[in-house]
Amino acid sequence: MTLIVQKYGGTSVGNADRIKHVAERIAQTKRDGNDVVVVVSAMGHTTDRLIDLMGEITPEPDLREADMLLATGEQVSIALVAMALHCQGIKAVSLMGAQAGIMTEKKHAKAQILDIHTERVRGLLDQGYVVVVAGFQGITEDQEITTLGRGGSDTTAVALAAALKADMCEIYTDVPGVFTADPRTVPTAKLLPEISYDEMLELASLGAQVLHPRSVEYAKKYGIFIRVRSSFDAGPGTVVKGVELLENQKPVSGIAADLNQVKLALLEVPDKPGIAAKLFTALAEEGINVDMIIQSVRGEFANDIAFTVGRNEMARALAVTEKVGAEIGASGVIHDADVAKVSIVGAGMINHPGTAATMFTALADASINIQMISTSEIKISCVISRKQVQEAVRMIHERFELSSEEVPVFVPCD
Amino acid sequence: MTLIVQKYGGTSVGNADRIKHVAERIAQTKRDGNDVVVVVSAMGHTTDRLIDLMGEITPEPDLREADMLLATGEQVSIALVAMALHCQGIKAVSLMGAQAGIMTEKKHAKAQILDIHTERVRGLLDQGYVVVVAGFQGITEDQEITTLGRGGSDTTAVALAAALKADMCEIYTDVPGVFTADPRTVPTAKLLPEISYDEMLELASLGAQVLHPRSVEYAKKYGIFIRVRSSFDAGPGTVVKGVELLENQKPVSGIAADLNQVKLALLEVPDKPGIAAKLFTALAEEGINVDMIIQSVRGEFANDIAFTVGRNEMARALAVTEKVGAEIGASGVIHDADVAKVSIVGAGMINHPGTAATMFTALADASINIQMISTSEIKISCVISRKQVQEAVRMIHERFELSSEEVPVFVPCD
Repeated sequence: MTLIVQKYGGTSVGNADRIKHVAERIAQTKRDGNDVVVVVSAMGHTTDRLIDLMGEITPEPDLREADMLLATGEQVSIALVAMALHCQGIKAVSLMGAQAGIMTEKKHAKAQILDIHTERVRGLLDQGYVVVVAGFQGITEDQEITTLGRGGSDTTAVALAAALKADMCEIYTDVPGVFTADPRTVPTAKLLPEISYDEMLELASLGAQVLHPRSVEYAKKYGIFIRVRSSFDAGPGTVVKGVELLENQKPVSGIAADLNQVKLALLEVPDKPGIAAKLFTALAEEGINVDMIIQSVRGEFANDIAFTVGRNEMARALAVTEKVGAEIGASGVIHDADVAKVSIVGAGMINHPGTAATMFTALADASINIQMISTSEIKISCVISRKQVQEAVRMIHERFELSSEEVPVFVPCD
Repeated sequence: MTLIVQKYGGTSVGNADRIKHVAERIAQTKRDGNDVVVVVSAMGHTTDRLIDLMGEITPEPDLREADMLLATGEQVSIALVAMALHCQGIKAVSLMGAQAGIMTEKKHAKAQILDIHTERVRGLLDQGYVVVVAGFQGITEDQEITTLGRGGSDTTAVALAAALKADMCEIYTDVPGVFTADPRTVPTAKLLPEISYDEMLELASLGAQVLHPRSVEYAKKYGIFIRVRSSFDAGPGTVVKGVELLENQKPVSGIAADLNQVKLALLEVPDKPGIAAKLFTALAEEGINVDMIIQSVRGEFANDIAFTVGRNEMARALAVTEKVGAEIGASGVIHDADVAKVSIVGAGMINHPGTAATMFTALADASINIQMISTSEIKISCVISRKQVQEAVRMIHERFELSSEEVPVFVPCD
């Protein structure tokens, strides 16, 4: 029998009506002859409400107690989803992370899953139950409740799929799948029927907020197929799988724009060892996450070091950079918030020389100046002016002929 | 070291400010040199909100899933109380019923506690922690979450006190303790410094909604002292303990009025065996709880059977009684919603002959007609006209000289 793990996010179970709708979909999957394990997140804004309540008590909550508090959100959802399944005439039982055997390290607020004891879930599946598991949470060896941090429910779903050797892990969300570009920017953007783990990882970290990177890494490690699809329509979504299983490897699968970037540069840095290390260690010690780094040769004895950080870390990054700049004798620090990053991602890039040149030409033809470039095996990113980012995405999308013949139509499900 | 178990109800932890206030009181108890275990209920109307949400999904929720859902209410409270204690500089840790080792039978919605594995709580107390335990919930041997039903948090507190051999179990509520009568009816009603388990049981079941009877039975069984006191002032409250430990056994400790009663009577029932059994079996099959039953001899061959039921069960009880009455050939059925029950309770009654006579005389002097009488070893109840109930309570209160010298003054805590 086919075993499918389905994960429904907070929006999909946001109120009683949506929970009933989700239950219909789960029931149909079960009636189609599949074994089904369901992973659910907390309803809508439940987690935010709990965080607000916590904020009224203390500005610095103990992480263990915060986990105790936040884990209740998913527990509410699983009970309600199980009840809604009973209304559909489906045998269903809900399990907390602890009951589902999701064992984590003893690290609150962002625990890693160490192991899943699947005996109970398997036993229930064998008896014909749909098993509804609380996402985002686990338990330590000494029975302490932990949570998995951001993207935790996706990770729960993929980890369960791996442990149960499921045939498919379906992640239900509020978009129809992964597109060649953001359909709000490029109306003819095409829904990708499939994409590789690495491409998905690059897209996820580039701001295409569909799947959390941790869950994709987990799926890649254990070879789990993920299908990303909408809980609001019946479309097929996008399957994420190993590159060797993709039917065709185009040079470019998708284009992502990231507006959450600002650029800083340290000018005329003396060309001697340890300078870059000093700067980036200082930034790391402040917990500032640096994305792109470019070191360019200014002359015989000096370099410029430019880098990007998240928009909300600009002020802190600037302070650190100015301090380090003064210490090492740089001639100055510049910063620019009027930037954005546009990236192309494609597993086939490796076998298609000239992909970078095509991208740069497309940008040049649109008179878009490239400020920084960074590349990986399957990704090319350019920092450009913020106000040109939408035009850049459209130009590149057209140049790589990614557009669908027709504007994607989402099939509504009853 | 003295070990105190404190239980705070839903009103006491109804919002962030009240939780902080409760934390101050717990912190003071700890600083006074006591070991402290705290049991908390769900915040204010949390349980009602969860029940409403459940109602939107299904009219007949599965009891297991309802327990999974409702148990989250207390889990939220314990985390927040522990955080508030941290703000007071107190080491504290929260435990769900499962983590606190509260083992119950496998019976959802109203499980009985079978055993408490105290190792973890004891270990934490030994390390100087205040342990904050979720009331109302437990876990079965096979790791299923159960709830204890009405009054469950009181029961958790008393059971923990018994298992830990605590010196005192303090039940914090929104009234200052147990009074000789309802202070709204009798302004000079006296706060009882102490009362026996049996008296408390009679008062609890008579409508003095201070402690749930189950928790009192548990305390009696294990000899746990309960102190009922207000979480809103610093008064001493009422200690509930064994009758042999009471300092003086007055004939009457308290007076309770129960307005939630209606009277039904089956008239001229043939005097043959099995008639009463037939009526009360039919009522029990409908789930109708009968309180007082009086069978009176009407003549040589017929009896009248009168009984009282809860007000909201009147219509159903009437239908059953009329059906049975027709089958057995009774001459008619009467019902009267204009009644109330007034009761005196006192462990010393056994040694004070004439207590009943004193009560009946007090009522007669006030021209109050007694419609039904029922007695136990430590209680005498009379059904009277509803509109005379307050006068009846005042008259009896005066006749037994229960009034305090002065109107009780509640000492506000800081």
